[in-house]
Amino acid sequence: MEKRELLYEGKAKKIFATDDPDKVVLYFKDDATAFDGTKREVIADKGSLNNGISAAFFTKLTEADVPNHFVKGLSEREMLTRRVDIIPVETIYRNRAAGSLAKRLGREEGEELPFTLVDFHYKNDELHDPLINDDQAVAFGWATREELEQMRTLARRANEVLRAFLLEKGVLLVDGKLEFGRTRDGEVVVADEICPDTCRFWDAKTLEKLDKDRFRRDLGGVIEAYREIHGRLTA
Amino acid sequence: MEKRELLYEGKAKKIFATDDPDKVVLYFKDDATAFDGTKREVIADKGSLNNGISAAFFTKLTEADVPNHFVKGLSEREMLTRRVDIIPVETIYRNRAAGSLAKRLGREEGEELPFTLVDFHYKNDELHDPLINDDQAVAFGWATREELEQMRTLARRANEVLRAFLLEKGVLLVDGKLEFGRTRDGEVVVADEICPDTCRFWDAKTLEKLDKDRFRRDLGGVIEAYREIHGRLTA
Repeated sequence: MEKRELLYEGKAKKIFATDDPDKVVLYFKDDATAFDGTKREVIADKGSLNNGISAAFFTKLTEADVPNHFVKGLSEREMLTRRVDIIPVETIYRNRAAGSLAKRLGREEGEELPFTLVDFHYKNDELHDPLINDDQAVAFGWATREELEQMRTLARRANEVLRAFLLEKGVLLVDGKLEFGRTRDGEVVVADEICPDTCRFWDAKTLEKLDKDRFRRDLGGVIEAYREIHGRLTA
Repeated sequence: MEKRELLYEGKAKKIFATDDPDKVVLYFKDDATAFDGTKREVIADKGSLNNGISAAFFTKLTEADVPNHFVKGLSEREMLTRRVDIIPVETIYRNRAAGSLAKRLGREEGEELPFTLVDFHYKNDELHDPLINDDQAVAFGWATREELEQMRTLARRANEVLRAFLLEKGVLLVDGKLEFGRTRDGEVVVADEICPDTCRFWDAKTLEKLDKDRFRRDLGGVIEAYREIHGRLTA
């Protein structure tokens, strides 16, 4: 496998082509951003920790037959994945109320939810990734009705797998964002990354935050939290 | 039928008990409010016009077998309706992009939609009636999964009936908000009011706004627009 030209640079990752048209290399950067890119910082080691954490989670998903883009780890900051077109609909699964859900709907942060909620957001920083419903996603061509159903089902399955895995490590999975991609043959698979940038992890005993909320809310100890998650997953 | 004590006073209406425990009197006030009650004005005659307009629309719904709370008109400002518990989920049907949908999703106001979109909002002024999805409504006990399906179906049916009726009168039905109520025996019916306070009406030829946007956006000619709609419906 040969790494080739840069295809795309996002806020936290770069994507490179390879000599296989169906595979790409994901390179994890140290850049941290929040609030649609308006808050930015470079946090040394974040990229390599997120690469390792994502690889551990994707491996669990593969073992549980949840279709995803992960092929294998390549280096400290790189993984090989299937090449997909990202569906511009972010999928959030929630086990407890937190973040935008708590704020928009007037719920207490940490409130346990009676079942896992799934919500869809239009992936658009300028519009602040607004919550959307199925009708809107379909009407504006962001996803088909069938894709949304698959995404909802896969998000719930992924949540169950990741939640159980994390609980063994003494971590509560509060919520998480998934991105889905379409492979060349039209399969919908979990893509992007799964890490403290995209999930809320709370220590199961102390409820201490071990995720990007430490950066968003200036709580300090950001990289220590990421290191803690990495350490527990790979122990 | 005897009118009894005041049960509730809202922004635009009062509701009175009657000697029949399953019937109430709706009294339409002249108060105009916008932006969750932060903008207020009294507009003489608005109450009587909205009472007449709502009666005309509910009569059309009844003729088309769309279950609703309307029983009969009583006076210039009053109608008799079935007594219901209002479901705290506002239902919006949209034939063209406008208002919050256009703003949140970056769509052009007036864009024709490929099909009628329905969206649900949590009825809560303090939270600015946020968009919600089905999972959220169910998890927080605002409506059941079955009620949401009924509301979606009834909103689409009501839209088709009202849209055709208005087009005969040279008016485009851009979008509209419906509130639904549960009767004592659990039936879900269209309730509240249907008028220029709760719908967007555009003249079919000139696209002139004939609804509360004239008040929200300080376009002038508010009562003239309501009178125009009333005149066309009752001509």
